[in-house]
Amino acid sequence: MTPAYLAPVELPKAYRLLNHGPTVLVSARHGGVDNVMSAAWACALDFAPPKLTVVLDKATRTRGLVEASGQFVIQVPTAAQMQLTHDVGNTSLHQDPAKLQHHGVELFGLEGHDLPFVAGCSAWLACKVIPEAHNQQAYDLFIGEVVGAWADTRVFSGGHWHFETAGSEWRSLHYVAGGQFYAIGESLVARTEPRG
Amino acid sequence: MTPAYLAPVELPKAYRLLNHGPTVLVSARHGGVDNVMSAAWACALDFAPPKLTVVLDKATRTRGLVEASGQFVIQVPTAAQMQLTHDVGNTSLHQDPAKLQHHGVELFGLEGHDLPFVAGCSAWLACKVIPEAHNQQAYDLFIGEVVGAWADTRVFSGGHWHFETAGSEWRSLHYVAGGQFYAIGESLVARTEPRG
Repeated sequence: MTPAYLAPVELPKAYRLLNHGPTVLVSARHGGVDNVMSAAWACALDFAPPKLTVVLDKATRTRGLVEASGQFVIQVPTAAQMQLTHDVGNTSLHQDPAKLQHHGVELFGLEGHDLPFVAGCSAWLACKVIPEAHNQQAYDLFIGEVVGAWADTRVFSGGHWHFETAGSEWRSLHYVAGGQFYAIGESLVARTEPRG
Repeated sequence: MTPAYLAPVELPKAYRLLNHGPTVLVSARHGGVDNVMSAAWACALDFAPPKLTVVLDKATRTRGLVEASGQFVIQVPTAAQMQLTHDVGNTSLHQDPAKLQHHGVELFGLEGHDLPFVAGCSAWLACKVIPEAHNQQAYDLFIGEVVGAWADTRVFSGGHWHFETAGSEWRSLHYVAGGQFYAIGESLVARTEPRG
């Protein structure tokens, strides 16, 4: 079932979903297998068409699904999903075939995209791999073109995040190490007018 | 003059300076010219040796200095430097030869590195370009190997950020769009022990 508050984000503004550097969940599907992992190393790469980079270690099962299907979803998890985000990054479908159920991951579908989307996130970016064999092999670096973007309107609407008015459970997560994250904090606005 | 609280960060922990996705300042020097720009699209790429990616638009003067010298500094600006970070990202040395002075940028040197380091930041990563002509041309994507890392011990020590105890002026900046940043927020710690 599609989440009630999900709304499309226009593609030229999709970079804003990642611009503040959140830790993300990467999901992929191939041959009847769905998987989800977390990744702190994901980054916007271009505005229009929007592109992004994500680092996928060779040991991860998700990488195999991405390589086989040529597509993946980057989603922005919330503070309420902190434990889930940690857990899916520290367990492998190789060891635990019921990994997703064990860590409370619920998936949903979106018409026109044969991809697993993680419920409860604040934003989703459906991506098509731009094949770059050297980057993938030498650096574990994947480039994706964003072909669809959506956000939960309770925290992102009108092209802007609303962390300062949404509940603290909606804050994005920014991983450091050893199980420690920071939630995103206060809004700060620079002077943009030219100086006199 | 070297800042009083600057201390080296061991290279295998250098990724932690960027892992939470801050907007950074990129600085470079060539032929007697120093420049500094901001970049929201910088990301860790590997642990050891530490590597990172940064997107440098062809229109920027800093990119030319990076290409000519083969090196650059990525530094993590603080909330106290929010206006400076915005301004150096929205003006070009092409138009304003006194850009750095006009925006209050002070530089310092570090022995063994012929690079301009920006004073007042919380962390600095000296990088050597790993030449990847296709990435640079097609995607404006540069890969750097981190050859030296330092942090201000008032906000990063023992391999960890201390945003929760340092003053709010030390918070990292996470740019969205239109002059709006978020400061990094609250620390959240996941359970890391195996479940019973």
